Formats: sequence, structure tokens, C-alpha cells
Amino acid sequence: LRKGFPEVIFCQGKTIEQIVWIFSKLGEENRNILGTRASMEVFLSVQKLYPAAIYNELARTIVVSQGEDSNKTGNVLVMSAGTTDLPVAEEAAVTAEVMGNHVRKAYDVGVAGLHRLLDKLELIRWAHVIIVVAGMEGALPSVIGGLADQPVIAVPTSTGYGASFNGLSALLGMLNSCASGISVVNIDNGFGAGAMANTITRMIEKVAHEDKFKK
Amino acid sequence: LRKGFPEVIFCQGKTIEQIVWIFSKLGEENRNILGTRASMEVFLSVQKLYPAAIYNELARTIVVSQGEDSNKTGNVLVMSAGTTDLPVAEEAAVTAEVMGNHVRKAYDVGVAGLHRLLDKLELIRWAHVIIVVAGMEGALPSVIGGLADQPVIAVPTSTGYGASFNGLSALLGMLNSCASGISVVNIDNGFGAGAMANTITRMIEKVAHEDKFKK
Amino acid sequence: LRKGFPEVIFCQGKTIEQIVWIFSKLGEENRNILGTRASMEVFLSVQKLYPAAIYNELARTIVVSQGEDSNKTGNVLVMSAGTTDLPVAEEAAVTAEVMGNHVRKAYDVGVAGLHRLLDKLELIRWAHVIIVVAGMEGALPSVIGGLADQPVIAVPTSTGYGASFNGLSALLGMLNSCASGISVVNIDNGFGAGAMANTITRMIEKVAHEDKFKK
Amino acid sequence: LRKGFPEVIFCQGKTIEQIVWIFSKLGEENRNILGTRASMEVFLSVQKLYPAAIYNELARTIVVSQGEDSNKTGNVLVMSAGTTDLPVAEEAAVTAEVMGNHVRKAYDVGVAGLHRLLDKLELIRWAHVIIVVAGMEGALPSVIGGLADQPVIAVPTSTGYGASFNGLSALLGMLNSCASGISVVNIDNGFGAGAMANTITRMIEKVAHEDKFKK
Amino acid sequence: LRKGFPEVIFCQGKTIEQIVWIFSKLGEENRNILGTRASMEVFLSVQKLYPAAIYNELARTIVVSQGEDSNKTGNVLVMSAGTTDLPVAEEAAVTAEVMGNHVRKAYDVGVAGLHRLLDKLELIRWAHVIIVVAGMEGALPSVIGGLADQPVIAVPTSTGYGASFNGLSALLGMLNSCASGISVVNIDNGFGAGAMANTITRMIEKVAHEDKFKK
Amino acid sequence: LRKGFPEVIFCQGKTIEQIVWIFSKLGEENRNILGTRASMEVFLSVQKLYPAAIYNELARTIVVSQGEDSNKTGNVLVMSAGTTDLPVAEEAAVTAEVMGNHVRKAYDVGVAGLHRLLDKLELIRWAHVIIVVAGMEGALPSVIGGLADQPVIAVPTSTGYGASFNGLSALLGMLNSCASGISVVNIDNGFGAGAMANTITRMIEKVAHEDKFKK
Amino acid sequence: LRKGFPEVIFCQGKTIEQIVWIFSKLGEENRNILGTRASMEVFLSVQKLYPAAIYNELARTIVVSQGEDSNKTGNVLVMSAGTTDLPVAEEAAVTAEVMGNHVRKAYDVGVAGLHRLLDKLELIRWAHVIIVVAGMEGALPSVIGGLADQPVIAVPTSTGYGASFNGLSALLGMLNSCASGISVVNIDNGFGAGAMANTITRMIEKVAHEDKFKK
Amino acid sequence: LRKGFPEVIFCQGKTIEQIVWIFSKLGEENRNILGTRASMEVFLSVQKLYPAAIYNELARTIVVSQGEDSNKTGNVLVMSAGTTDLPVAEEAAVTAEVMGNHVRKAYDVGVAGLHRLLDKLELIRWAHVIIVVAGMEGALPSVIGGLADQPVIAVPTSTGYGASFNGLSALLGMLNSCASGISVVNIDNGFGAGAMANTITRMIEKVAHEDKFKK
Ligand SMILES: Nc1ncnc2c1ncn2[C@@H]1O[C@H](COP(=O)(O)O)[C@@H](O)[C@H]1O
Ligand SMILES: Nc1ncnc2c1ncn2[C@@H]1O[C@H](COP(=O)(O)O)[C@@H](O)[C@H]1O
Ligand SMILES: Nc1ncnc2c1ncn2[C@@H]1O[C@H](COP(=O)(O)O)[C@@H](O)[C@H]1O
Ligand SMILES: Nc1ncnc2c1ncn2[C@@H]1O[C@H](COP(=O)(O)O)[C@@H](O)[C@H]1O
Ligand SMILES: [Mg+2]
Ligand SMILES: [Mg+2]
Ligand SMILES: [Mg+2]
Ligand SMILES: [Mg+2]
Ligand SMILES: [Mg+2]
Ligand SMILES: [Mg+2]
Ligand SMILES: [Mg+2]
Ligand SMILES: [Mg+2]
Repeated sequence: LRKGFPEVIFCQGKTIEQIVWIFSKLGEENRNILGTRASMEVFLSVQKLYPAAIYNELARTIVVSQGEDSNKTGNVLVMSAGTTDLPVAEEAAVTAEVMGNHVRKAYDVGVAGLHRLLDKLELIRWAHVIIVVAGMEGALPSVIGGLADQPVIAVPTSTGYGASFNGLSALLGMLNSCASGISVVNIDNGFGAGAMANTITRMIEKVAHEDKFKK
Repeated sequence: LRKGFPEVIFCQGKTIEQIVWIFSKLGEENRNILGTRASMEVFLSVQKLYPAAIYNELARTIVVSQGEDSNKTGNVLVMSAGTTDLPVAEEAAVTAEVMGNHVRKAYDVGVAGLHRLLDKLELIRWAHVIIVVAGMEGALPSVIGGLADQPVIAVPTSTGYGASFNGLSALLGMLNSCASGISVVNIDNGFGAGAMANTITRMIEKVAHEDKFKK
Repeated sequence: LRKGFPEVIFCQGKTIEQIVWIFSKLGEENRNILGTRASMEVFLSVQKLYPAAIYNELARTIVVSQGEDSNKTGNVLVMSAGTTDLPVAEEAAVTAEVMGNHVRKAYDVGVAGLHRLLDKLELIRWAHVIIVVAGMEGALPSVIGGLADQPVIAVPTSTGYGASFNGLSALLGMLNSCASGISVVNIDNGFGAGAMANTITRMIEKVAHEDKFKK
Repeated sequence: LRKGFPEVIFCQGKTIEQIVWIFSKLGEENRNILGTRASMEVFLSVQKLYPAAIYNELARTIVVSQGEDSNKTGNVLVMSAGTTDLPVAEEAAVTAEVMGNHVRKAYDVGVAGLHRLLDKLELIRWAHVIIVVAGMEGALPSVIGGLADQPVIAVPTSTGYGASFNGLSALLGMLNSCASGISVVNIDNGFGAGAMANTITRMIEKVAHEDKFKK
Repeated sequence: LRKGFPEVIFCQGKTIEQIVWIFSKLGEENRNILGTRASMEVFLSVQKLYPAAIYNELARTIVVSQGEDSNKTGNVLVMSAGTTDLPVAEEAAVTAEVMGNHVRKAYDVGVAGLHRLLDKLELIRWAHVIIVVAGMEGALPSVIGGLADQPVIAVPTSTGYGASFNGLSALLGMLNSCASGISVVNIDNGFGAGAMANTITRMIEKVAHEDKFKK
Repeated sequence: LRKGFPEVIFCQGKTIEQIVWIFSKLGEENRNILGTRASMEVFLSVQKLYPAAIYNELARTIVVSQGEDSNKTGNVLVMSAGTTDLPVAEEAAVTAEVMGNHVRKAYDVGVAGLHRLLDKLELIRWAHVIIVVAGMEGALPSVIGGLADQPVIAVPTSTGYGASFNGLSALLGMLNSCASGISVVNIDNGFGAGAMANTITRMIEKVAHEDKFKK
Repeated sequence: LRKGFPEVIFCQGKTIEQIVWIFSKLGEENRNILGTRASMEVFLSVQKLYPAAIYNELARTIVVSQGEDSNKTGNVLVMSAGTTDLPVAEEAAVTAEVMGNHVRKAYDVGVAGLHRLLDKLELIRWAHVIIVVAGMEGALPSVIGGLADQPVIAVPTSTGYGASFNGLSALLGMLNSCASGISVVNIDNGFGAGAMANTITRMIEKVAHEDKFKK
Repeated sequence: LRKGFPEVIFCQGKTIEQIVWIFSKLGEENRNILGTRASMEVFLSVQKLYPAAIYNELARTIVVSQGEDSNKTGNVLVMSAGTTDLPVAEEAAVTAEVMGNHVRKAYDVGVAGLHRLLDKLELIRWAHVIIVVAGMEGALPSVIGGLADQPVIAVPTSTGYGASFNGLSALLGMLNSCASGISVVNIDNGFGAGAMANTITRMIEKVAHEDKFKK
């Protein structure tokens, strides 16, 4: 079974001093650490402590890997429609990966260009769980939910303007299509989607391991 | 050019006496009359005055045809996803028709079953204007907008429950996809969509007639 | 693998005639059928067609079982806090069951009485997926999410009054705790929660069957 | 028929690197390009690549013209009430123009000064489609809709303060007057209005060309 | 100066027993009494007590006149657009009248038919205060505010459907045009508008009487 | 009767160039000019054109006085509760004054200290119209409305935090007390309140002048 | 110290069968029982079980007294402005009383008639805790909070119409005046206010008993 | 009884000049002074006047102690879940303390880690009043309310993102759990919570002193 599951620090709203202090404290226990919503400035301070820390500028994540490596065992596909949703999609991808999943990405699919979406059917079949990140393309999860048999985790984003109301519009649209195997996490919560996906793949792994479902 | 364009009576919120009185007054001018949001009870009273009046129970419309017939000249396609959106879709269809358009309908298309939608491409090519009526399938207009070159008029409906918030959720989702040749009318406003479609086909007809665009 | 997966009819907003017609059409294909949000009156009409149909008055569901029986293979636990959330909880339970899962229920747990919740740890360990239904106890999913390693699907309900705003308050509270392995479906959407839970257990079953995760 | 229809880049929320990269990629295909919501800084970078690019500072648009010229064939009138709505009105005008329409403007009409509006009747008759941009004067589209036979596309803007709620108030007001041949696009979505207007004039042009409406 | 200013009873939310008891108590003091939001059933009970009480079925008001008569001294014009706004308009008219004002009415004016509005200029000049009642025609007060020099009191109504959101949309639209001598009362509050108009005419009367402004 | 009624420029959302240009154009007609929501920077540019222009830093108003002087004839009292409401209260005061009214101020009254309010009864009796500006003290207008016979114009302000929701909370509270001779203008709209007050005093003046109310 | 503290049943949303079953189960333990939000029909069924049960029709409460009597020890004053707030005020009063407090009531105080409020200063001094129930008079708690030194518990009610938005408006207004020793419970939650008041008086009693504060 | 109760200045929205002036005026009366929502810059100016003034950087409070010392007599416990809620929690703590209470803090308790909460039972028993500050952990007050017999004052905070909607989500969740002895103050209103807690402990103290409750 997987090892090295990370501790998580939500950096937004904390001072650099507080963040560095938490990182150092957690590091003593030889755990992997994931920092989310971290600015470059935060990263530079953390890097002094952990020179091997890795920063994903788009996702705004810091990953500190120490301790045993985790065997990647679940297949998580992250899909999104456009450039402005990338930060949230990347946060989901980094989270799922650091928690021990294989992650693939399809960041160029939108409902107004169905062919590009239909090109991804192979990728969809590969996945155990699909994360769909969308702001102005709030319709994307229900279209994908119709094509896929897997659990779909929808993440509304606060991109867009006007009647997008900071993601509320996408959130509501996604909630209204819950019937087809979709559930939703908070606006911009790439981390939550990655963590939920991981909770599912971990359960899959556990059951397969225990042979509970053998027939 | 078209004749017999109807007068319109919005019956909701009026007493039967008020409605019958308006119908009788308008009828004197030998005009066609369209009554919307009319209950069966209202219809029965109007029918005494105009025995040839026609009631569409689903659309809740009353049509009184008198005076010259209108030549149907525009092609309006009304699409919707499900049974619960039918009343609004029918209101749009009746309105577009009584105003002088050819109307066709595709009431069984949804984003979660793309093949049924792709079967309608022929019908889509036929249309000059497309009306898309959707409540829980708020994503439908943007998917159709991606497939079609025509003006798309989106009508959110107040069906659904929970986070559908009486159509607000569908409305917001539709507004967020305005870039692809979509514009939106009020929640449940099938009449307004039919009237807007007609305004467009009338303009097409007028320009074609005047040969303005000849090359 | 599971058989007899049902067709589903959402009865709300449809006339009895429409519903009976859809039931009869689907029945011809010898499928199991699940009707949701069905009144007693609807059931009585459906029963004439399928005398063996079963009505759950609380859940307002109709189940028509024909064709092969489904082997139950996933473990779904449905939890809720109080009497007023029962209809939604039951809808989730019936849905998960008719789709082929073992379902257990804990309908008497609330955050203000932690001991009753701590009594359920055994039951929690049994589950592959946990559905938590809550209206006035909007805090319940995050407390359970803290106790459990399983995917938690939270269903806000429209019970309560005043600032519960028809479930909006519970919905928002649940979205804010997405970090701990929780995702959310629409207000009162017991069906969607059951279907999402089933999508997860089906994926577990599929992977276990394919031995993909064997080590 | 029209040529040189542009590719469009929504610049907001993208980094300068991303934008320049997309411009250069699209440019290779010898297409016209329209960039919207572009800052001066973005323009200066794009200009290095395309020295003939034109920036409209008010509209915040970049237009790169290459390839064949488009014959302008539709008549689009853009109306607004005040200075603060100009950026959105200009975005609509630039969009309609670069897509191949004749564009005229009436930026000084308001409901509280009806005479100035009545002076524009000539201009109104000229148009095939009318775009009305309004924030604090949310009433403008319905007044114009009453004077005009053409399709009216209403664009709410986020100007104003207090109970204007970033354009929501104007949006709702416009939706409530959809009956008279008005449909609505997203708040501040000048681009969407221009594109919708163009979809209509293109359809007019196509039908006139095909002689479909000949009598 | 005016006499016989009435006591007011807001009947909604009170039992018939409570209402009759308050009427009888107030009546002992020989005052005029105005009951608002009174059902026919309430009126029939009050009538037993005061056989001369007058019921306005549209306005849902009860007026009991006793004591000295009031000399009517202010000129209040009540304007509205359509049939569905009549109950609120009538409540405003009855209130202003029973408080001692001359009341005239123009109930057939709308922004989409400017000529009918321009026909009322004479009436507008007659008024000291103008009350404008509007739901779907939320634009009406600002158009009238542009034509008139008098104080305009705008009353949003909860008629309409969809994005009218029970009058919220009209309310917001009216608030956004406050610059031109308009102020707003609560949704459906015909009484409040009549009372506010009366407060203004009473002040006019008082100042004229005191000769304060003589030059 | 009053002379020199000013032209008004709403400076927010306009560039300095646009503002200076409008000031210079209006100035040619020898009118008084009132600029609202003007920054110090705007003022400095206007001052170059009109060295006698006066800036009220708190109110953010610019007043250019030229042409004939206006005889002050109406009595307007501006009341507010606290320091943070001062900018809006001052905007109302400057507006009422430049339009030809005597203005007095009571800026230190709050509902939690009734004695300070009861000290102002003399001042209240002096007024023809009362403007009440309040944010966190949303209750103030109804308390004053209970003490005064004059028309009360309530101005909600966007001060406060949390559940003040940028003035929405104060706005709603004020709308709910419309029965007692109160009407409301937009959030932070000191100008609108001043203009409405002036519309009332001008009407008083006109009637008194015409001797219409003589008895 | 107090005895006989009651068990509480929230009857709304439960079937009569469920309610009677819970009453009978709780009754076995010889406890006092308080049922809230109970219809007359519910009461009649409960009365068969407990002939001595007392129904308060206004408050919609059922009280079953058995076991030892509680010594009343805290002083709770319930204040409200008008007839329509009485049900909620009575629910608060019944709750505080059955939990062992002396309860007095002042149901005729409003901010527009300050003298009636100032008449209650004696009553205010008597109280240990004050509950203020208000819908349209949302200002009442802050006025009372200014007069009193005691903890004030504010209960917004859903009476009123239009912009009262089912109590939201009163709720927001009350939250904005929290500085002066006021805290708020849910809309219409008379029970919660009574229970909170009781929690305070119980703590007072406990401390006084333990002599902790002796000096 | 307590002495030296402070005067309070709400610094947000005031200029430094205004703040310093109020401090100096209040200081003349030899009172203790509490400034809330004060920036470091404000503090530095106040410090020139009162060199002994103390600034709490997290709470953003200034305390000026002069005059007699207050005997601390009530026990107030402030609880919160995470680092981002600390500023509001500290504001509550400083307020309660400067008003004469013993204050203890438990800033590391959350619903997802029940054991840490159960460790605090001793501390809970010590308190007379409990303040619970929470943003993303909106469930915390109801869990604590279930464990404690004391009055609980819940303070929603505007931390979090997405569907936390600046504290609205936490506010609504807290209001829905008012039954169990919880009442709520405004979002981020640490001051109001501290003041309410103090109002309660003062009342406890007064009653104990007067021996009213002696048995
Ligand atoms: N981007 C994120 N959005 C929401 N929750 C997060 C995010 N990143 C981390 N978390 C959660 O926040 C917790 C850490 O919060 P904290 O102790 O304040 O750093 C983690 O255990 C996660 O559950
Ligand atoms: N279903 C509808 N929804 C919205 N507006 C409508 C509808 N039916 C008719 N109308 C509009 O209402 C006007 C008639 O309103 P009225 O004079 O009140 O009967 C027509 O001219 C239409 O513009
Ligand atoms: N239709 C109405 N809408 C709002 N307030 C009203 C209305 N009718 C009467 N009122 C107010 O309600 C008060 C009487 O309330 P009540 O004592 O509850 O009958 C009157 O003095 C009026 O100020
Ligand atoms: N942080 C705060 N939040 C809300 N109200 C406050 C706060 N600080 C002080 N107050 C209140 O504001 C009043 C002082 O306001 P002011 O006179 O504007 O300084 C005090 O008496 C308190 O009731
Ligand atoms: Mg699927
Ligand atoms: Mg298209
Ligand atoms: Mg968990
Ligand atoms: Mg028109
Ligand atoms: Mg005017
Ligand atoms: Mg008054
Ligand atoms: Mg007090
Ligand atoms: Mg408790």
C-alpha cells in the first residue's frame, strides 16, 4: 500500500513566519509536505529550509519530498477547457500526484468544440476518477459525465466576469447535473478535488488488496 | 410580406373578466390574437366569444385566427432536453408560428447523450434561428452554439429543484456562454424567445425582399 | 459483474399520462425501473401496469424489478441527523440499493451529541462510500469526514426554516469543508448521491475484477 | 460572401507570454486576429510581432489584419447612454466591424432625455441589428425596443455603484423586457453582443444570397 | 388645514378577531380609519360594525369615514403601465385620497409606447407629486422622471415572473435612477407611496399657509 | 424664483480629459456646475480652468459658481450617525445647497443614544425636508420618521463590514420602514438625496408662489 | 437549583405518528416536554396521550408538565413591536418559562413611537436578559440595546413583505448592531432565543449559588 | 464592582487626524480607551499622545489604560480552529479582557479532529461564556454547543474562499444551529462578541452581588 502520504499546509491568509514555522515543524517528522496557495515569496523562504522543495508556479504549490516514496497506484485524469482554469487544474493535478496517483491531463477540451473532446475517449477509459475544472465552460462536467462511466469530480472556477459571479454560476450549473455520477467541490478548490479523487482511488486500492470483491 | 401579425395578451395576473374584455376589444379590429399563460378556464370563456379559438394545453396559449392568413417565411427550430421543459418550448413554438414562421421541433436532445444531438445536424442546417429551451440541462445552448452557425436564443426554465433556484442557475450558465452567438431571454419566457426569433426572420425577409444584399 | 442496472424516471413535473407511458415503454425492454419523486397517485397508476412494483412512501420512489437480479457488491452507508431529512436519505438508500449495493443506515446521529456518532465507528469502517444527508445539521459531513477515510458524499436538504434558505445554507457549509475527502451534490438530491456512490463502487468492483491493483 | 473572419483571443487572465504565443501561432495561418480585454502592455508585446496591429485603447482590443479583406455587408448600430459605458460599447463596435459589418454609433442617448433619442430614428431605420449598451440607464433597451422593429441585443454594464451591484441590476431589468424583441448577453460582454449581431447579419446575407425568400 | 387624518390598520397577518377589535377601538375616537391588505372576508366583518365602510376590491382597502371631512388640497398623480400593477396603484391612490389629496390616474402608459406617455404631459403638469407603480416596466419611473419636474415616488411591484424575482429587479432598476428626482419605497408598498406623497403635499400646504415663501 | 440651477457631472469612471472637456463645454453657457465623486487630482485640473472652483474634500464635490446667484429658499436638514457616513452626508448637503436650499446638519445622532437625538427636535421643526444618511445605524431613518412630520429621504451607505454587505443591509432595513413617510435612494447616493430634497422644496416654493393653496 | 428541565420536540416536518411516538417515549421518563411548531391537529393527538397537556395557539407550543416543578429563577423580558410578531414572541416566552424563568412581556413598543418605549424602562431594569422580536421594525433591538445594560437577544421574524425578504432584511439589520451587547438567533427562532436566554440565566444562577463572585 | 470600563473607537473608515482627535478628547476624561481595527500607522500616531498605549498587531487593537484598574471577574473562553481566524479571535479576547474579564484561549480545535476538542473539556468547564470564532470550520459552534452548558457566542469570519462568500456561509450555518444555546454576531465582529460576552458576565456579577438568587 501507499506510503509517504503528505501533510498539507494551506498558505493563504498566513504570514510567511507562520508558514515557515509550520513547514519546519512538520518536516521534523520526516513527512512529505504539500503547501497550497503559496506565493513565490513564500516558496523562496521555504526553499531556504528545504533546498529540494519544488514550486509549481501555475498551481502555486510547494512540494517537499522526504521519507519513503509513494507507489503511484490510482489513475486520475484532470480535464479543463481553457487557459484561465489552468491554475486550479494544476493544483488538482499536483495534489493527486503527491498523494500517490498517476495523473494525466487534457487541458484543451470545451463544449463548443465537441470533436476535441471525442478525441479524448481513450484517455477517459484509462482513468479511475476524472476531475473536470471549468469556469466559463460550466457545461463541461455534464458533457463528460455523459461520456464517462467513472466518478466525475467537478471544480467550478472563479474565472470569467459579469454573470459568472466569481464561480457561483459554474457551481450552480454543476450542481444541477449531479444525477449522472458527478459531485462537486468548492469554487477554485483544486486541492479538494485532488484529495477527493485520492480518497476514491485509495478505497479502490484497499478493496482490491483485500480481495473483498473477488468472484 | 407577412400579414396578420397578431396582437398579444399576457393573461397571467389578470381576471377572466379583464381578459375576455381585451380579447373582444382587439377582435373588433379583425386582428389575429395570441393569448399566453392562459388557463383552461380562461380559454373556455374566450371560446364562447370566438368558437374557432385554439387552445394548446401544454403551452397554455390561445390563438384566435381571423383576418388574412400570414405566409410563413422564416425557419425556426425549437430544441429542448426534457419533458419538464415542454411547456416553455411549446410557448416559443406557438408564438413563432402564429407570427408567421415555419417551426420544427427537437425535444429529445441532451448534453449527456451527444449522439441524439448529432442526429439533428440536418435539422439545424434547415433553421434560420434556433431557440434552445433548458432548465436542468443548462449546458445545452452552448453545446448547440458550438455546432450551429445560426443565431441561438437561449431560454432558461424554472424546472429542476434545489440549486436550480427557479431557473437562475440555468440563466447564469447561459449568460456565461454568450460568446458563441448566443443571447438569452427571461426565465420561462418562451413567448419572448419566439418573438425575438421572429424579429430576426422578419429582418431577413425584409432585406432579402429589398435585395439590399444582392451581389 | 452487476446485472440489471435500472432505467430511471424523474417523475416530478410530468403528468401521470407521461409517466405511465414512459414506464410502459421502458418495461418492454425487460429492464428494472426506478421512478423518483413519485406521488402515491403516480404509484397507483404504475401499479396497474406492474402489479409487483414497490413504493417507498417516505422516499417517494417506485421500483419495478424484472429481468435478472443484480448481485449486490458495494457497501454504502447512509447517515443523517434527523427525522426531517429522512425522505432524502431514503431516496439515496433506495437508489444505491436498486443499483446493486448493500446499504446500511444510521439516521440518528448529530453533531450536538457526539457519543451517538462515535458509536457508529464500526459501521463507518464497513462502508466503501458514505452518504451524509443533512439540513439543519450542515456540520455533520465535516465531522464524519474527520472520522472516516472513505469518500463522503454530502447531500444538503431543504428542511429547516429562516436562514436555512431552502438548503442553501447547508450547501454552502458543506462546500467549505471539501478538503477532507468530501464532495457535494444538489440540494435534496438523494438520487444523485446514490448514483454517485454507485459510480464509485462500480469502479472499485471493476478494478478489483481486473486485478489491476494486485501487488 | 464575407472573407477573413477573425480568430479571437480573450486576453484577460492570461500571461503576456501565453498571449503572444497564441497570437504568433494563429498568425501563421494568415488569419485576421481580434484580441479582447488587452492591456496596453499586452498590445506593446503583440505589436513587436505584428507592427501593423491596431489598438483601441477604450475598447481594449487589438486587431491584426492580414489575409483577404472582408466585404462589409451588415448594418449594426451601437447605442449607449453615457461616458462610462463607452468601453463596452466600443468593444461591441470593434467586434462587429472586424467581423465584416458596417457599424454606426449613437453614444449620447438616455431615457431621461427622450428628444435626443427621437433624433436617432433615421439611424435606427438604417440598422439591421441594434446593440444597446447600458449600466445605470438599464431602461434604455426597452425604450429602444419600443421604437425599433429590429432585433435588439442588450448589454448590461457593470458601471454605476450601490444597488447597481456590478451590472446585476441592469441585467435583470433587461431580462424583464424580453417580450419586445430584445435578448440579452452577459454583463460587460461587448464582444458577445458584436458576435451575436454578426451571427444575425451573416444569416441575413446568406438567405438573401440563396434567394430563399424570393417571392 | 386638513382635518380627519385617518388611523391606519395593516390587516395582513392579523386574525379577523384582532382586526375587528382594532377597528372598533379606533372607531370610538371618531377618527377616519383606513384598513390595508384586507380580504373581502375581513371587510364583511368590519362592515357589520360600520355599515358605511367602503371596500375597494382591487386595492384591498377598507375606508371608514366618520368625523369631519378633510378638505382635499394636494394633487397626486398615480401612473402605472399595466393591468397587473393595478392593485398596488389603487392602494396608493386610495391612501393619498383618504389622507386628503386630489388623486388622478394614468394606468395605461408604458415605455414601449412612448406616444401614450407623451399624451399625459398635461396631467403631469397638474400634479404636485407623481407616484409611478411598475413591475415588468421597471424603466417607467426614470422615463417619467425625465419628463417631469415634480418629486417622483417609485413603487416596484412583485408582478412578472422569472428574473423579475418578486419585484427585486424592478426595485434595483428604480434605485439606480435616483439622480433625477426619484425616490423609492418598498416593493408592493402602495400605502407607503401614498403616505409619502401626502407627507410632501402636507408640507407644501403648511408652508403656503404660513406664507413662509412669500416674496 | 430660484436662479442659477447647476449642471451636474458625475466624475467617477471618466478620465480627467473627459471631465475637463465637459466642464469647459458647460462653462461656456455661464451655468453653475456641480461635479460629484471627483478626486483631488480631478479638482486640480478643473481648477486650472476655473480658478474660483471650490473643492469639498470630504464630499468629493467641485462647485463652479458663475452666472446669477440662486436665492436660497428651502430648508433641508441632513442627519447622520457617525464619522464614516460623513462623505455621503456632505455630498447630500453640498448638492442641496448648490441647488438653492438652506442646509443644516446634525451629524452626531444615533439610535443607541436617544437623548442626543431628542436634543435635535428644534432643528427638525425648522426643516422642510430631512435627509438621513446611515450605514451601520440603518435604524436611524425610522426613528427620525417617527419624530418628524416632514418627508424623510433615507440614504443607505456602504460603510460597515460583514453582514452590512456594502450597504445592502441598510438599504433593505430602510425600505421596510417606508410606511412612516420615508422613501429611499440608492446606496451612497448623497447626490440623489440632495436632488430629491430640492425637487420637493422647489415644488413647495412654486405652489406657495402661485398661491394655489391659499384658503 | 432548577428541576424538571424539559425535553424538546420540533414538530414541523414530522408526521403526527412520528410526533406522538416521540412524545410517548419521552413521557415514560417522567420528564416535562415542550413541543414547538405544533398545529392544533398535532395537539389534539398529543392530548389523547396527556390530557393535561397545554396548547398555546399563538405560539403553537405544547407543554406537558409532569415530574417535579421547576423553581423559576431568572427574569426574562420579551419585547416586540406588533401583532404580526406575536407568534414568535410567544414561542420565546413559552420556552423561557417552561425552562424555569419568570417571563414578562412588552408587545406594544416600536421605534416610531419612542414614548411607549420609554415607558418600559422599569420593566427593562427588572430583566436579566431581554429578547427582542421584530420583523418590519428591524431597528428595535439596537434602540433597546442603547437603553439597556442587559444582554439582548434579537430574533428577526419573517413577517412583512417586499424587501423584507422573509426576515433576511431584519436579520441583516440586527447583525449590524452587534456592538452594543446584542446577539442574534435564526429568523423566527423564538425557541432558540428562549433557550439562549435560559442558558444565560442558568449560568447566572449557578455562579450566584457557588458564591464565586462574592466580594 | 468593575471599574474603568473603556470608551471604544472604531478606527476603520476614519482618517488618522479624526482618530487622534477622538483619542485625545476621550483621554481628557481619564477613561481607559480601546481602539479597534487600527493599522500600525494609526497606532504610531496614537502612541505619540499616549506613550504607554499597547498595540496588538494580530487583533489590530490599541489599548490605552489610565484611571483605576478594573478587577477581572468573569471567565471568557475564546475558541477557534485555525491560523486564519486568529485576528478576529484576538479582537474578541482583547475586548473581553479590557472590559474586565479573565480570558483563556483554545485556538487549535477543529471538527475534523475531535480528540483535540475533547481535550478542552476542562477549559470549557472553567468558562462562564464561550466565544467560538470560525470561518471555514463553520460547524465548530454547534459541536461546542453540544459539549457545553454555557452561553456560546458564535463569530463567523470572512476567511476562506469560493463558496465561503466572505463569511456568509459560516454565518448561515451558525444561525441554523441556534437551538442549542448559541447566538451569533456579525461576520468578523470579534469586538461585538467580546462586548456581548462582557454584558453577560457583568449581569452575572451584578446578580451575585445583589444576592438576588440566594437560596
Ligand atoms: N487549497 C486548499 N483549499 C482548501 N483547503 C485546503 C487547501 N490546501 C489545504 N487545505 C486543507 O487545509 C488543511 C490545512 O489547513 P491549515 O492547518 O490551516 O494549513 C489541510 O489539511 C487541508 O485539508
Ligand atoms: N408569456 C409572456 N411573457 C412575457 N411577456 C409576454 C408574454 N405574453 C405576452 N407578453 C407581452 O405582454 C404584452 C401584452 O401585455 P398586456 O397588455 O398586459 O396583455 C405583449 O405585447 C407582449 O409583449
Ligand atoms: N400596506 C401597508 N404596507 C406597509 N405598511 C403599512 C401598510 N398599511 C399600513 N401600514 C403601516 O402599518 C401601521 C399599522 O400597523 P399595525 O399597527 O400593525 O396595524 C400604520 O401606521 C402604517 O404605518
Ligand atoms: N470592531 C468593531 N466592530 C463593530 N463595532 C465596533 C467595533 N469597534 C467598536 N465598535 C462600536 O463602534 C462604536 C464607536 O464607533 P465610533 O464612534 O464610530 O468610533 C463603539 O461604541 C462600539 O459600539
Ligand atoms: Mg457518467
Ligand atoms: Mg455557433
Ligand atoms: Mg476523511
Ligand atoms: Mg421592437
Ligand atoms: Mg424630473
Ligand atoms: Mg414621520
Ligand atoms: Mg446595551
Ligand atoms: Mg450547549
